[in-house]
Amino acid sequence: MKPETTAECRCCPRYHEAVELVGKRWTGAILYVLFHGGQMRFSEIANSVEDLSDRLLSERMKELEGRGIVERHVSAGTPTKVSYELTDKGRELAPAMAELKTWADRWLE
Amino acid sequence: MKPETTAECRCCPRYHEAVELVGKRWTGAILYVLFHGGQMRFSEIANSVEDLSDRLLSERMKELEGRGIVERHVSAGTPTKVSYELTDKGRELAPAMAELKTWADRWLE
Repeated sequence: MKPETTAECRCCPRYHEAVELVGKRWTGAILYVLFHGGQMRFSEIANSVEDLSDRLLSERMKELEGRGIVERHVSAGTPTKVSYELTDKGRELAPAMAELKTWADRWLE
Repeated sequence: MKPETTAECRCCPRYHEAVELVGKRWTGAILYVLFHGGQMRFSEIANSVEDLSDRLLSERMKELEGRGIVERHVSAGTPTKVSYELTDKGRELAPAMAELKTWADRWLE
């Protein structure tokens, strides 16, 4: 009996992590909005992603901040204003997102 | 009271669909392996993606076939051999995946 064939190329763990990070429910949409909107307040992000609840948006923003993809700014003054912005790490996802957008425009209805 | 600010750029539904399709658990890894492996048998794909159960792989392959991203080939002869290959639609995800790999190599540990 022949040994089970093993393909030479195994999936790379870093790539796997990246694709599941970006592809997590709502995360891709939030990143898209931040790419185009620059520094944005919570309510602006919420208004730009249809059907996303505040609870889930808040959860995702914490995750993205924890991963160093998004930076949270708190203004001086009362009341304080909280806004969010992509870090360099986050902005460098732009080429991948742009390629995916090109694919989507070509292949999805 | 000022009306709630609405960002000008809303997330595009096609892009949203694409990022969640590709980012669905294991799908990114399966696509990566098929990009590099060409036409592959089920067991070869399974062996190339660590920790992925046959049950989930089978589910994902059906989804990818249903979306027109993967083609299933059944050979003549006994026993029949089943293999899978990316379609043009699937292969055109390569640039997005390559950009994501570049990002992962740079930013993830």
